[in-house]
Amino acid sequence: MDNQVMQNFLYKRYLSTPNRLAFHYDGKDYTFSDVYHESYKIAGHLAAKGIKESQFVGVLLKNNLETVYILFALQLLDARTVILNNRLTSKEILWQLRDSKASYLITERAFDKVYTEVKYELSEIQVVLKEAIDQEAYIEPAIVKEIHLDNVCTVMYTSGTTGHPKGVKQSYGNHLWSAVGSSLNLGINDRDAWLCTVPLFHISGFSILMRGLIYGMKVVLIDPFDARTIIEMIHKQNVTIMSSVSTMLRKLLDELGEARLPTTFRGILLGGGPASQALLEDSIAHNIPIYQTYGMTETASQIATLSPEDSLQRVGSAGKPLFPSQLKIINESGHEAEPNASGEILVKGPNVTSGYLGRDHETAEKLNNGWLSTGDIGYLDEDGFLYVLDRRSDLIISGGENIYPAEVEGIVAAHHAVADAGVVGMKDSTWGEVPVAFVVIKKNHDVSHDELESFCNEKLAKYKVPKRFFIVEKIPRNASKKILRRELRKMIQM
Amino acid sequence: MDNQVMQNFLYKRYLSTPNRLAFHYDGKDYTFSDVYHESYKIAGHLAAKGIKESQFVGVLLKNNLETVYILFALQLLDARTVILNNRLTSKEILWQLRDSKASYLITERAFDKVYTEVKYELSEIQVVLKEAIDQEAYIEPAIVKEIHLDNVCTVMYTSGTTGHPKGVKQSYGNHLWSAVGSSLNLGINDRDAWLCTVPLFHISGFSILMRGLIYGMKVVLIDPFDARTIIEMIHKQNVTIMSSVSTMLRKLLDELGEARLPTTFRGILLGGGPASQALLEDSIAHNIPIYQTYGMTETASQIATLSPEDSLQRVGSAGKPLFPSQLKIINESGHEAEPNASGEILVKGPNVTSGYLGRDHETAEKLNNGWLSTGDIGYLDEDGFLYVLDRRSDLIISGGENIYPAEVEGIVAAHHAVADAGVVGMKDSTWGEVPVAFVVIKKNHDVSHDELESFCNEKLAKYKVPKRFFIVEKIPRNASKKILRRELRKMIQM
Repeated sequence: MDNQVMQNFLYKRYLSTPNRLAFHYDGKDYTFSDVYHESYKIAGHLAAKGIKESQFVGVLLKNNLETVYILFALQLLDARTVILNNRLTSKEILWQLRDSKASYLITERAFDKVYTEVKYELSEIQVVLKEAIDQEAYIEPAIVKEIHLDNVCTVMYTSGTTGHPKGVKQSYGNHLWSAVGSSLNLGINDRDAWLCTVPLFHISGFSILMRGLIYGMKVVLIDPFDARTIIEMIHKQNVTIMSSVSTMLRKLLDELGEARLPTTFRGILLGGGPASQALLEDSIAHNIPIYQTYGMTETASQIATLSPEDSLQRVGSAGKPLFPSQLKIINESGHEAEPNASGEILVKGPNVTSGYLGRDHETAEKLNNGWLSTGDIGYLDEDGFLYVLDRRSDLIISGGENIYPAEVEGIVAAHHAVADAGVVGMKDSTWGEVPVAFVVIKKNHDVSHDELESFCNEKLAKYKVPKRFFIVEKIPRNASKKILRRELRKMIQM
Repeated sequence: MDNQVMQNFLYKRYLSTPNRLAFHYDGKDYTFSDVYHESYKIAGHLAAKGIKESQFVGVLLKNNLETVYILFALQLLDARTVILNNRLTSKEILWQLRDSKASYLITERAFDKVYTEVKYELSEIQVVLKEAIDQEAYIEPAIVKEIHLDNVCTVMYTSGTTGHPKGVKQSYGNHLWSAVGSSLNLGINDRDAWLCTVPLFHISGFSILMRGLIYGMKVVLIDPFDARTIIEMIHKQNVTIMSSVSTMLRKLLDELGEARLPTTFRGILLGGGPASQALLEDSIAHNIPIYQTYGMTETASQIATLSPEDSLQRVGSAGKPLFPSQLKIINESGHEAEPNASGEILVKGPNVTSGYLGRDHETAEKLNNGWLSTGDIGYLDEDGFLYVLDRRSDLIISGGENIYPAEVEGIVAAHHAVADAGVVGMKDSTWGEVPVAFVVIKKNHDVSHDELESFCNEKLAKYKVPKRFFIVEKIPRNASKKILRRELRKMIQM
């Protein structure tokens, strides 16, 4: 007997606690019953369009409650949702839609440039406009009330070190175990409310929606990020926990000044890369417990998180692997590293992806006997606490967004005047890091900073475009021609 | 990739929170590190005896911390533990050991009559005496650090309506999902402490041990049950929750009198069959939230439980199925019953057993497409709340112990002077119910009450022995010769 079958999470929550609050958004409260009925209605419109079980459906949407209904409607239909980062260029979106073989794209007027291009270049894809959904035809939807935990719920693209974006398959089980692992670490109670001001197209935001369903917990959805609004909402909506990245936390502490959050506020789940000691200490000075966390798209959010009891004693650590999960450090000779010795971080558990969509080769390269090679560097101290040194060695994290240097280098080097290019992150007081490029110009060619920038703007999401272009004679490379990015980083530290 | 693999729960908890308190027992505190090391040591002694992965090992032990170490040691070795009810007669124990094909029996001096018989009658079984374990040989145990969630962790026997005890297979996954389902309903926090004064050989007690490991929670272990001690421990040990059956709760409330439990006490998980309205109202008057629950050996404890928010509004209901699980009512024509119409309760979920040990036929009879027919009768109200009317239709619950009339009838009818017998439960102010027998005497035979009682005492655990024997002319039976127990029940109500 296969016992990996459960009821659709939203449907189950509607049956269990219909009258509990599910969301606070834009001044209004919504119960699980409200959310179920709205999502059900949208599922009816999407079903009328032909969307059904197992189909891949791209979504390119803003961060609001209507988007949540669409995401949940797709779950009610057991479709596979390809969640597109809404800061990408239309070229990047088109690439991901093609790669995932999506049959539909659900988007909205704000992305008119993208959907015009999709209609033009990918005529096989049906485009559904969010604003028009409820004026479309409606049929009673065939809700998939039972889902298999191995079914793909969502696909999110991540670039990895090679520069080719890969679609990470996230199953219902991945999301469920991630939520369960978090609850076994941070605890849960029926007065919890989680503030979400991180993007829903990231696993950081999407996982809050899933926790809301699984815990039966109120999610306070705020977009855009605004420190003053957030502090006000923490008070008024009795928020107990929020997810944040360093940039946001800094702004929050600055806005807070001498004020304090209410004692019912339990703490901040801080992800998106290592945080500075100064920031962590400032949080402690504000009496805000920080649960530093380590996770990624491939682990359906957290896989290691500092526990409440250690949040003051182990400042700077991302804690221990959550109850369902495992983590180890492998040194350069391929063996498990000694305590305090750094190496690559490998992770395993039921929240870890089964692989990359349509990429068996890359999957086999990264996943071995359930262990995923993250490419990140870190160490475990003698008590087993994780310290992350470098995210994916060369990854640049800018305001919580991941930027893969290889992807940006590929674009810069495609300019006809460029012979070679190298990209690294430069410290930035607002964003944490910003990408900067080192460029070798071809003989007898010339190119301005502005021209390179506008060339990149066409092809890359704004946050990925290098903020500076340094002209150099040569990009330092090792014997196998791999860029020595640490050498480049040295040049900007001087 | 198979993602149903996790670390051994005790080992994981030792790695995660070694310094947290795991148990309070007999005036002393024990951390997870203490418990791991003690269990590891015992695993070494058991390994030296030859106990290893996948073997079936019977345990017949008292309710104390040393027993917990043995149960956990067997998990470290990934052996299958056949947990024997320590109130059974040696005949019953022998039967279960034979049926489970156990290779070992771990027991203690208190059960000398049983182990003498086992040694005599089941010479293929090695008997290990608890008191002698640490004087036995020791080898460094090969701890099974990763277990598959489908592996059988424990086997507990239950008699069912047919009277033949069947070994219920409980996997690691069953126990894990049961604990997770409970936490998603009742909440968890790092100040929780669960008081256990119910038997560890029952799923009610054993599941508390598993929750302790999975949540990283302190278990306050008390044996024997004593109302005054329990109230004292709730105060001194900051107990937040306890499991109880009606009999215990009645004694607790009587002992409490005008006094109140501390406000940190969250509530009582009340299982073991329907509770009287008077008892529930008295609990409310004492400001004690009651989470009525429905569950059984086959569901690794709770499958439906009243939530904290409903504990006052839905008095008498066992709540809704927990997040991972489902429940439905089937009427006599085999269809799902309307709200408020009663029928047989069917359950499904990852906490439901995969079946009965070595009994594919009975398993196939009871399990259909993941749905287990419980034999219990109940209904769901219009909001989906479960009301249990009758446990396994004819089941007698006496002080939290299940008694199956068919089993007792089989014994009584085996007496040479008895022609026919029927057994039902009679209300009892101390035990809730006690079994009573109706007996038809063979022509030209005679038998006294005392003789029937001592005949039963030889073959049945004391709590199963009928407290009264009524001589009747005929046992009422229906056309297919099934005993009409409701007719018998009418006779004792008059």
